[in-house]
Amino acid sequence: MRFFIVPGHRVVTGGDFTLNDLSGSTGRLDILLRCVNSAFFLSNSIRQDVELYLVLLGQPEPPKTVKFVGSELRYLNPDERSTAALVRSALMKRCEGEWARSTPGIYVARKGFDEILAECAGRAGEIFHLREGGQDMRDAEFAAADNAFVLGDQYDLTAGEEEAVARFKNRALSLGQKSMHTDHCITIVNNALDRACR
Amino acid sequence: MRFFIVPGHRVVTGGDFTLNDLSGSTGRLDILLRCVNSAFFLSNSIRQDVELYLVLLGQPEPPKTVKFVGSELRYLNPDERSTAALVRSALMKRCEGEWARSTPGIYVARKGFDEILAECAGRAGEIFHLREGGQDMRDAEFAAADNAFVLGDQYDLTAGEEEAVARFKNRALSLGQKSMHTDHCITIVNNALDRACR
Repeated sequence: MRFFIVPGHRVVTGGDFTLNDLSGSTGRLDILLRCVNSAFFLSNSIRQDVELYLVLLGQPEPPKTVKFVGSELRYLNPDERSTAALVRSALMKRCEGEWARSTPGIYVARKGFDEILAECAGRAGEIFHLREGGQDMRDAEFAAADNAFVLGDQYDLTAGEEEAVARFKNRALSLGQKSMHTDHCITIVNNALDRACR
Repeated sequence: MRFFIVPGHRVVTGGDFTLNDLSGSTGRLDILLRCVNSAFFLSNSIRQDVELYLVLLGQPEPPKTVKFVGSELRYLNPDERSTAALVRSALMKRCEGEWARSTPGIYVARKGFDEILAECAGRAGEIFHLREGGQDMRDAEFAAADNAFVLGDQYDLTAGEEEAVARFKNRALSLGQKSMHTDHCITIVNNALDRACR
């Protein structure tokens, strides 16, 4: 299994937003929507072995996490607008500390970064932090079948988030010399793992 | 220079569409919008060394090509909706066989696949056709600094398009065993070239 964890440092935690201004009024939810696309889509199928955790930290109810489970997903299309509608439905659902199912494969809970990290660490062999200066992923070996990948959104991880990662078995990975968008990094990680496992 | 050429086999060639239904009423323009994102965006900049050609083949005025020139681009944002607005502006512009400038870095002309291929072949050392069964890109050597990459949209190249490619110095490349979306392929090609050139 591949777990991707992406904090949305300013992304809204309520469903009161319009689908017509996703990059303006949502605290850059659009960035995370593109991560959904790159985490799950193959040419004619959905990746069954991926789970994606979007940890939303903006107003009005931070923190809140939207979880996508590849093996259960239905109604997911590649465009930003329809994915935003699914996230909005999840954010409109009443939830507490346990996962509540919104639509098939999409769950929501009032969980923050540390809690999500602990959940994934309990199921993954290692946590990989994607960032500049890490070991080149092409040279990395993946001892376990299940791995978690933590990526920043348009902001790096905060000091507190880095400390949370450091509490678990972890390694910093990079994908080359150029700094890329989060969704592009997920695409490249998926492709690298596909190749490593063939 | 990197040239990316993507035919939109059913994508509309007129600007009479709504931004609220990009994956429904435009012949899947949304697929090509994601290619614009992956061709040009780095974390905090636009790739200056990329040109992207979207060859639109749907109604009402096929063929028509929208060209993006990285070194001249302004007003480009990563989300699908705002990129769609730029493409719509280009498609609303009156044009004939020569490139007409729509907004900075974006041009439109009544040119088809063969003509675009010839234009790019004249400036690139080789034309690479991304498809299943090609040589793995990781093992490929790029003799020239300037290369053109041809990718299908949700459809493979037609027999006629394949014949057009075969008229030039060309090679088939693949990116692994799994079949991926076009925009994901562009992301991986960009990353592979970044690494090859460091």
